[in-house]
Amino acid sequence: MQEIHLKTERKTQLVDITAQVQQALGDSNGAAAALVYIPHTTAGVTINEQADPLVARDLENALQKIVDDGWDWKHVEDPDGPNAPSHVRSSLTSTQILVPLQEGKLALGRWQGIFFCEFDGPRDRKVIVTSLA
Amino acid sequence: MQEIHLKTERKTQLVDITAQVQQALGDSNGAAAALVYIPHTTAGVTINEQADPLVARDLENALQKIVDDGWDWKHVEDPDGPNAPSHVRSSLTSTQILVPLQEGKLALGRWQGIFFCEFDGPRDRKVIVTSLA
Amino acid sequence: MQEIHLKTERKTQLVDITAQVQQALGDSNGAAAALVYIPHTTAGVTINEQADPLVARDLENALQKIVDDGWDWKHVEDPDGPNAPSHVRSSLTSTQILVPLQEGKLALGRWQGIFFCEFDGPRDRKVIVTSLA
Repeated sequence: MQEIHLKTERKTQLVDITAQVQQALGDSNGAAAALVYIPHTTAGVTINEQADPLVARDLENALQKIVDDGWDWKHVEDPDGPNAPSHVRSSLTSTQILVPLQEGKLALGRWQGIFFCEFDGPRDRKVIVTSLA
Repeated sequence: MQEIHLKTERKTQLVDITAQVQQALGDSNGAAAALVYIPHTTAGVTINEQADPLVARDLENALQKIVDDGWDWKHVEDPDGPNAPSHVRSSLTSTQILVPLQEGKLALGRWQGIFFCEFDGPRDRKVIVTSLA
Repeated sequence: MQEIHLKTERKTQLVDITAQVQQALGDSNGAAAALVYIPHTTAGVTINEQADPLVARDLENALQKIVDDGWDWKHVEDPDGPNAPSHVRSSLTSTQILVPLQEGKLALGRWQGIFFCEFDGPRDRKVIVTSLA
């Protein structure tokens, strides 16, 4: 089990962590898959296009539309506004993704990258990477 | 492979099953991760905050807003109303989650819990727990 | 690691691939779970009801309502219209699903099937199937 540490810069921000995940895997010794796990409740992880950065921006905007900050939220934590919508966005993307490995390399599709999804930044965040047999 | 049985009480209800999942894992003998799998099509599983129960209530309400009961649904099963939206909510949360294990313990983040997501209750439900090497 | 190849026929289309996944697994030799992975960024995979095909049609329609083609999208690739919403639908369903195995058979619930989710068809598509110990 390896950890990746990152610092996000915006309230809602997708960060490409593909290279860090591959590096964390190191010599994965014939493992079959890599589990990328987010131990936070207002963040997530997703796989999507890394070639055009505008796809990540569209995802950020879409998740803010799908889950509206203006809905009637019960959970209020921050004095500067509710982060309840951030929790819902986390569950919509999921806190984990499993990627097959081929000779130790992430068997991602040609256009795919792994994105950390910040929904309540800026914050210091952690990602757990585990290889499975 | 272990089974957890539970009885839900409301149409849409998140139930914290973290303790039952940990118990089902028993002595997982150095396993790397735990797969929590829902064998139903109108239920799901998600990881989110367990500290404030209002987060679960917000998630229930949000999923009912994101997927509207009033849309024009084709699948009609129950005489007392369509459960098609329940199927969509199941796919939005997913029917499975994989959590890394550290010395047999679920390596959840500080605020995280595992929630069974009922979208067509009340019902008797089952959860499958499998450990992976 | 096995590959399934399929050809989709519509822009948004769920295709039941349960039988192909089971066949790809072959003699999985006591494996604990099967990873079904989609190496595309405008497609996904989900588990839902296979008994009534209208559930899949409802899911197609719902994902088009949840993510609106008319929103202000930044990523423009195709001359005949943006496929940015397709990328978001991919992340909402996820590009991977993990199913427990029991004596080599997918331990799906009674009503469950595995669906390839096309969000930018028609296209030639690929699915990767890997068994985990």
